[in-house]
Amino acid sequence: MIINAEHIQSSNKPQEIAHARAFNFLAEDLDKKGLNVDLLIRQLQELQIAIPSWALGTGGTRFGRFSGGGEPATLIQKIQDVGLLHALNRSSNAISLHIPWDIPEDYDQIGQAAAAVEIGFDAVNSNTFQDQAQQKHSYKFGSLANSDEGARELAIAHNIEVIEIGKKLGSKALTVWLADGSSFPGQQSFRKSLQHTFESLQKIYQRLPSDWQMLIEYKPYEPYFYSTVIPDWGTSFLLANKLGEKARTLVDLGHHLPNTNIEQIVATLMTEGKLGGFHFNDSKYGDDDLTVGSIKPYQLFLIFNELVAGFSETKNPKPAWMIDASHNLKDPLEDLLQSVEAIKLAYAQALIVDRKALAYAQETQDLAMAQGLLQDAFRTDLRPLLQESLRQSGGAISPIGTYRELKVRETLIRERGKDSKSSGL
Amino acid sequence: MIINAEHIQSSNKPQEIAHARAFNFLAEDLDKKGLNVDLLIRQLQELQIAIPSWALGTGGTRFGRFSGGGEPATLIQKIQDVGLLHALNRSSNAISLHIPWDIPEDYDQIGQAAAAVEIGFDAVNSNTFQDQAQQKHSYKFGSLANSDEGARELAIAHNIEVIEIGKKLGSKALTVWLADGSSFPGQQSFRKSLQHTFESLQKIYQRLPSDWQMLIEYKPYEPYFYSTVIPDWGTSFLLANKLGEKARTLVDLGHHLPNTNIEQIVATLMTEGKLGGFHFNDSKYGDDDLTVGSIKPYQLFLIFNELVAGFSETKNPKPAWMIDASHNLKDPLEDLLQSVEAIKLAYAQALIVDRKALAYAQETQDLAMAQGLLQDAFRTDLRPLLQESLRQSGGAISPIGTYRELKVRETLIRERGKDSKSSGL
Amino acid sequence: MIINAEHIQSSNKPQEIAHARAFNFLAEDLDKKGLNVDLLIRQLQELQIAIPSWALGTGGTRFGRFSGGGEPATLIQKIQDVGLLHALNRSSNAISLHIPWDIPEDYDQIGQAAAAVEIGFDAVNSNTFQDQAQQKHSYKFGSLANSDEGARELAIAHNIEVIEIGKKLGSKALTVWLADGSSFPGQQSFRKSLQHTFESLQKIYQRLPSDWQMLIEYKPYEPYFYSTVIPDWGTSFLLANKLGEKARTLVDLGHHLPNTNIEQIVATLMTEGKLGGFHFNDSKYGDDDLTVGSIKPYQLFLIFNELVAGFSETKNPKPAWMIDASHNLKDPLEDLLQSVEAIKLAYAQALIVDRKALAYAQETQDLAMAQGLLQDAFRTDLRPLLQESLRQSGGAISPIGTYRELKVRETLIRERGKDSKSSGL
Amino acid sequence: MIINAEHIQSSNKPQEIAHARAFNFLAEDLDKKGLNVDLLIRQLQELQIAIPSWALGTGGTRFGRFSGGGEPATLIQKIQDVGLLHALNRSSNAISLHIPWDIPEDYDQIGQAAAAVEIGFDAVNSNTFQDQAQQKHSYKFGSLANSDEGARELAIAHNIEVIEIGKKLGSKALTVWLADGSSFPGQQSFRKSLQHTFESLQKIYQRLPSDWQMLIEYKPYEPYFYSTVIPDWGTSFLLANKLGEKARTLVDLGHHLPNTNIEQIVATLMTEGKLGGFHFNDSKYGDDDLTVGSIKPYQLFLIFNELVAGFSETKNPKPAWMIDASHNLKDPLEDLLQSVEAIKLAYAQALIVDRKALAYAQETQDLAMAQGLLQDAFRTDLRPLLQESLRQSGGAISPIGTYRELKVRETLIRERGKDSKSSGL
Repeated sequence: MIINAEHIQSSNKPQEIAHARAFNFLAEDLDKKGLNVDLLIRQLQELQIAIPSWALGTGGTRFGRFSGGGEPATLIQKIQDVGLLHALNRSSNAISLHIPWDIPEDYDQIGQAAAAVEIGFDAVNSNTFQDQAQQKHSYKFGSLANSDEGARELAIAHNIEVIEIGKKLGSKALTVWLADGSSFPGQQSFRKSLQHTFESLQKIYQRLPSDWQMLIEYKPYEPYFYSTVIPDWGTSFLLANKLGEKARTLVDLGHHLPNTNIEQIVATLMTEGKLGGFHFNDSKYGDDDLTVGSIKPYQLFLIFNELVAGFSETKNPKPAWMIDASHNLKDPLEDLLQSVEAIKLAYAQALIVDRKALAYAQETQDLAMAQGLLQDAFRTDLRPLLQESLRQSGGAISPIGTYRELKVRETLIRERGKDSKSSGL
Repeated sequence: MIINAEHIQSSNKPQEIAHARAFNFLAEDLDKKGLNVDLLIRQLQELQIAIPSWALGTGGTRFGRFSGGGEPATLIQKIQDVGLLHALNRSSNAISLHIPWDIPEDYDQIGQAAAAVEIGFDAVNSNTFQDQAQQKHSYKFGSLANSDEGARELAIAHNIEVIEIGKKLGSKALTVWLADGSSFPGQQSFRKSLQHTFESLQKIYQRLPSDWQMLIEYKPYEPYFYSTVIPDWGTSFLLANKLGEKARTLVDLGHHLPNTNIEQIVATLMTEGKLGGFHFNDSKYGDDDLTVGSIKPYQLFLIFNELVAGFSETKNPKPAWMIDASHNLKDPLEDLLQSVEAIKLAYAQALIVDRKALAYAQETQDLAMAQGLLQDAFRTDLRPLLQESLRQSGGAISPIGTYRELKVRETLIRERGKDSKSSGL
Repeated sequence: MIINAEHIQSSNKPQEIAHARAFNFLAEDLDKKGLNVDLLIRQLQELQIAIPSWALGTGGTRFGRFSGGGEPATLIQKIQDVGLLHALNRSSNAISLHIPWDIPEDYDQIGQAAAAVEIGFDAVNSNTFQDQAQQKHSYKFGSLANSDEGARELAIAHNIEVIEIGKKLGSKALTVWLADGSSFPGQQSFRKSLQHTFESLQKIYQRLPSDWQMLIEYKPYEPYFYSTVIPDWGTSFLLANKLGEKARTLVDLGHHLPNTNIEQIVATLMTEGKLGGFHFNDSKYGDDDLTVGSIKPYQLFLIFNELVAGFSETKNPKPAWMIDASHNLKDPLEDLLQSVEAIKLAYAQALIVDRKALAYAQETQDLAMAQGLLQDAFRTDLRPLLQESLRQSGGAISPIGTYRELKVRETLIRERGKDSKSSGL
Repeated sequence: MIINAEHIQSSNKPQEIAHARAFNFLAEDLDKKGLNVDLLIRQLQELQIAIPSWALGTGGTRFGRFSGGGEPATLIQKIQDVGLLHALNRSSNAISLHIPWDIPEDYDQIGQAAAAVEIGFDAVNSNTFQDQAQQKHSYKFGSLANSDEGARELAIAHNIEVIEIGKKLGSKALTVWLADGSSFPGQQSFRKSLQHTFESLQKIYQRLPSDWQMLIEYKPYEPYFYSTVIPDWGTSFLLANKLGEKARTLVDLGHHLPNTNIEQIVATLMTEGKLGGFHFNDSKYGDDDLTVGSIKPYQLFLIFNELVAGFSETKNPKPAWMIDASHNLKDPLEDLLQSVEAIKLAYAQALIVDRKALAYAQETQDLAMAQGLLQDAFRTDLRPLLQESLRQSGGAISPIGTYRELKVRETLIRERGKDSKSSGL
């Protein structure tokens, strides 16, 4: 299935009057506050969020997996699904592949499929948390940190292979998430595991092209439940510093202990020039991988507030943006549309924060004012602004509305069947 | 200091045109959605949030206390402070007293002072977590749950005295928060402590006037750090059920373990007709007692979403509303104005949820729609509606703005001095 | 494979002198403290911990599953595995079946297999968190709480079928764990979900034989990540009270929010006569399902301290004991041996607490003494006592040592193959 | 009051036979395992835990403070209290002073008082979380991180003064704990706060004598409840690295988010040579400051397990050891005796871990064995070994027993009065 400009336009048509009324009112408001509405629209348009290939199917838990039908069973179908999203919201011009779930067989064909829907290839992801059939050494007890040298070498080679695949696709970053860890006190030497991890990463780093980044993810627990080799930003930062310029920390919103102040971590990493990328999702308990913004939208805004501040106040390069959610219950494409919308709204809210007034309130210890300035931005309903940016980009004013109107899922089920299964968790 | 209608009007004046523009636009929107704007305004006006007497001064932590000046040093001054708030936002027509910090000496005088600023007396609070000078038995190891019968009897007598005081003031509820608990495994018999608590509450309950309620608060820890006698809603509910019709559970937003789904507790208690009251505040880590809505505004909305649903779907009586925050850093009056605003906005958002569509989405497992309906209400900027309800009530369109314009704090400092100290934590 | 008395004896032989030395020294110590060593041994022998059928294979996480080889592929093989454990430690005389993973085809044959290894059938467990092939209604959005009546009826019928199976096996309890819940605010009406749950349970309860119990498990999250229908002990207790005498709460150690005081919940439930059963495991973060005692052995002791106190001080019937762990990394049988050992040591420690002195210390607020009394019991090395109880029962002095010496796993792999897979998570 | 050798000996006398029996049995056991009992005793004797001056009085919470009587009201009395502890357990040969609570007036007199009870002066602690009377700039909004330069300069000068005091006393380290942080989103610029903190620390660092260390403490929250300037080990480590060789991280056990794996942090810091010191206490919820080992004794052992491993495997210098607890309920001296005992037992258990076997189990992925090795050490009852080390040092076999027998508290109350108050929280 393909969504073309005509589809979008005819779906937008009946909404245009109401949209114009709301947008004009808001634009006037923003203008009065001294904000440049055209610039805001451009900034929103430029924010592109990569979609991971594994988020297009239904993710499961250890207790079960309930497929929804019409899942993309091949890499080309995954690319087409991202294309559908991009056609609707013009905000996801890249897919992030996961190897070995998505090894391209024919690079030309893959490249053409992507070009056809105007998307590129974002960071490539290695997988060393599952054994593949006939694998010589098992990752049961770890990969880059395994006490068994054979397993480490295998994992290193796999990461290097992933870089090679990425090079052919035009990716510019390797994301390393390690499941490595332990479930019982005593199982591992923390010291040796960390040392193995560093040395393994070093070997991979040496093979990284000069214009690439290595993004090092951290996570406190799961799938192991006592320790992980890179549990927190501090450990990722320590490793990135030792590895060199091209290594940076990747923040996944769900990978934190209860009550962590994530926005402060973002600010600290940007101050040090070491924020490499982001995995967006939301969570209440652990790595719940829920729709972005569905649980803690104010935290999301506070994170973007730091990002926007960091863009102008630090030399940190623009981080890689990606959604990393697991869609157990909703239609994955609807879920992704909601996630992208939530990200863009939080970004828009952060863009309208009166930073001069905020700095003054901070300087003069005017706490009620400082809080009020952030909440003013957050409480402002910027949906008409986002919709205008979508409209001007050729996207749908209401992406989910159009998605449903066009019966996308029904069509995909018809095309691919009720039982097609996407690779992933 | 007194704020009169003229003050308010002259402060509102310059904002009226901009306000009217925003309100009219919003009203049209709400109207189109089939909402009755006048009814919404009336509902907002009717929501009155009691102010606890101890929130008018600067609260401290175990590490220190930094007074801000102009604090109310007497009960009359506390009443006047609530009067100032009520004059500004017409939303706090009652004060909640804490005994023995606020024992009235002359009831007539107190009554007149309250009447003069149009406020009444909400639930009375007992204090059995501090020893008073010359106290015969110490509460160091507990009050209603103390293994020492003398301490228990003292605490029971104190609560009965608090009821007597409340009766003279026109209160209709006794709030019981027990610090009782233990800091070390073994210190207490859980069983005996619970039994003592129940029997002590029973003796107090017997003295409760027939039109009163007993509100039983729960809290998992602090000031004791291993256990408390009423750690969770389940224990409070168990006790309330045993005590009888007039006993209900009081929910303090800060009294939960990390990640607790508080809105679900609210729904369950209302279903059982046992939600008695609310202490509003916000927190990131524990009982942080921060400004309402400053950390998790979406959670606050979700709680009101359950409250509003419960009002029509259950027979639970209207709960008692109170702020319970501790103002360590901000001007306490500004802090309270922000808290009340946050509560009312969350309430307004909950009122505009399309409940029929929500029920249908729930029935048909349309998750994206169900999430979208709640978020639509939450993202709608209802500040103009709230401001209109304030304006129509004779309050300030921007309570904090007017507060600052009128130089309330400066005046209070001039009247009361820089070092006046309010009783409280 | 079968382990017989001869195997055990010849393995015990070389350890007997060292064991006797250690045991005699300890027995003298305990005797001096006024403890009846023979009684302690009998109490330890009588504590039997049921083994769930799904713990005999390797459990996985959503990220992967790494089998270990020789897993029991049939119900008979599972029974035989429990038989191996029981032969080694004489402490697991029952298996707890999970339906539909373990539906017996031939009851006689199953009964004989169980009798052959001297084990019986503990509580039966229903499964309404996974869809079976050709299932008419899906559990994707819940079972007993589903808004779809068809799904509810299916789940009710399944539970009744599980009771029927249990009756034929000689079980006396049905354990109900519901995955039902929601992942997004708005997805479910808390009120209706709770109501559906209650009504569904009621229909099942009506079919419960008069000498059975219904054990209602609670869990705050996973597999859903915003709410569950029975999140905490309070909700389970509320339901059990409404259902009637035969319904009680089941406590799974891993099903609590961070920092929960579980031992207090145990004490409260026993005081109310509503503690129905236990799922033992250990965890650091969430429902980690690790080996019992591997993370928080002192908490385990404190729980047993309440259980032992409750046995004499309350009328709560003896709860059902079961391990509920998931063995991702260790050999499942070794893991279970370690779990049972940890449970029995904690029980032994609780048995030697000087309860009279403790009550006195509590009465007199002697905190250092109260803490000291518990820690004295906990720090006492009771392994020789446990070993003596095993020895006298005909078990192995060092169950894991004997297990390895007898090359049990190697034999099972030879018998069943490297790739045999056990049903379960 | 002074406790002399005679007191100790006569108190030990009646316990000697029982002790000898227990110790000889244990020594034989340890010897059989190839452990050098004399070396173990020496290692235990050498472990000296500094006592902070503020732990000798009753600490309070924001809700109240319940003094116990006989508290040391002067610095000399505090030194004498540590002297009493040291006389009993020969394990606390140093006091850690807190400025300005403990500014010496007469250094000679203080030195003599300390010498008289054989104790020295450990790390000095600055206090920038409370305002002193007449203080020119307030710390209400921070000290080293305050946006107000005046407050920062004041706090820097204070820290330098503390160093000067420490030099006169013979201290070798400055411990910096900053309360600085914020309670509301927006209150502070994370970036500027961190920058201010770094620059302020740098100015203090420049004044640090060459043989001193600067110990940088981290804490996620309290007394501020949204953010702190040094929330986690990563930030402390980052600052210590920038400051230089003499700066290291100090770990306070209570300063972590829920479920943090503290032992891993210890291992990582030692690997990097940056573990500077330890504040021992225990907690269930937050910075509860409870008696060491009273809540999570196994975690304490796991931490010592890393420390002992780190001593031989890394070049990290020996860290500074101190108790940092707050004694709200127990007699502070009894509490400290229990804390020191718990620390030493955990250390002893860590010393007897079979590290060679553990390394082999780790290498060969023998998880059950690895867990078993740690638990074997932890379950061994090493109290007789600790008692022997105390006895040989001239300390009491049962320090608390002797303390009570000698009626120390009663004597102190007689000497100092029931209402003497110690400075502190």
